[in-house]
Amino acid sequence: MPKSVLFDKEDILNKVTNLFWEKGYHATSMQDLVDVTGLNRSSIYNTYGDKYNLFIEALKHYQLYQNELLAQAKKSSNSPKEVIIQLFNSTWEKLNDANSKGCFLSNCATEMSNADPQIKDFLLDNKTQMVTIFNLLIEAAQAMGEVSEEKDPELVANYLFSSLQGIRVTSMIDTNPKHIKGIAEQTLSVLN
Amino acid sequence: MPKSVLFDKEDILNKVTNLFWEKGYHATSMQDLVDVTGLNRSSIYNTYGDKYNLFIEALKHYQLYQNELLAQAKKSSNSPKEVIIQLFNSTWEKLNDANSKGCFLSNCATEMSNADPQIKDFLLDNKTQMVTIFNLLIEAAQAMGEVSEEKDPELVANYLFSSLQGIRVTSMIDTNPKHIKGIAEQTLSVLN
Repeated sequence: MPKSVLFDKEDILNKVTNLFWEKGYHATSMQDLVDVTGLNRSSIYNTYGDKYNLFIEALKHYQLYQNELLAQAKKSSNSPKEVIIQLFNSTWEKLNDANSKGCFLSNCATEMSNADPQIKDFLLDNKTQMVTIFNLLIEAAQAMGEVSEEKDPELVANYLFSSLQGIRVTSMIDTNPKHIKGIAEQTLSVLN
Repeated sequence: MPKSVLFDKEDILNKVTNLFWEKGYHATSMQDLVDVTGLNRSSIYNTYGDKYNLFIEALKHYQLYQNELLAQAKKSSNSPKEVIIQLFNSTWEKLNDANSKGCFLSNCATEMSNADPQIKDFLLDNKTQMVTIFNLLIEAAQAMGEVSEEKDPELVANYLFSSLQGIRVTSMIDTNPKHIKGIAEQTLSVLN
């Protein structure tokens, strides 16, 4: 497949993901998808299937983006505790009053997981992945003496996952970075 | 106004609130509202206005219900710390694998607050109310020696609000009560 086509698909998935992230699944119409991608309906149907399939693709695309951010954070620091702190800092450092979209996956959880088993499974897999990553980071931090050996890594990992969802929902309601920073710091005090 | 009409309105708002809570705003159709209430379209329009107005009524109705739960918790215990613990315990004690709808207001935040300033204002007011209640409970617990005087009540109150949102989102993804109980206990360890 020529590289230009791959590039286009990446670009289109970025646009589609941002649109679903901002508007949610149900409020996004096929016409919105046509407008944002610049493709016609038949191209979208032929390449991605229906709106639902395109939504699943957007979820997977967002997950890759999230994993990439985490990989970058890991590269930039030799301190596993610092990687966790960076992830939480990103929730308030980029916050501005005009727009806070929260987390695409937690938005999706509240909109769709009541009704859709396939999406619920996807979100549970994603939680397991995130909790596993937190778990490994905490164990590594313990091995380096950054976090007390007395903490239960799995328990703290589940707590960090949940707290991150909370901060992302809260930052959609209250866009004051000072408030969100305070919550993040209080959350991370468990690592002290 | 005869009492029977008031009773019916309460009953209808309960049904409508549960429907919006489960399906969200955009996925709920006018026909769904007709089906759940047993009213015809013109009665709904005449009494409540359009779907959007009915949604706002449902949000207010849910907020009253939430306040009522809190008032009951306050009555049932003389310990302000215990009232906070009860509120967090309710997130996992009633959890079952079949159905976890999360919190109507946090679901609404993720679905609607990107796009709708009126709803964003409502949710920010609700956050302020909840944080004020947590703040008062923490100050009362400090006065009774249940919580250390060193804690900043406003900071902890914001943290508890955010953590509760996180637990409610997480319990829509992972319906294992043991996991949610662990997260709630870790969250509340800040009060120790």
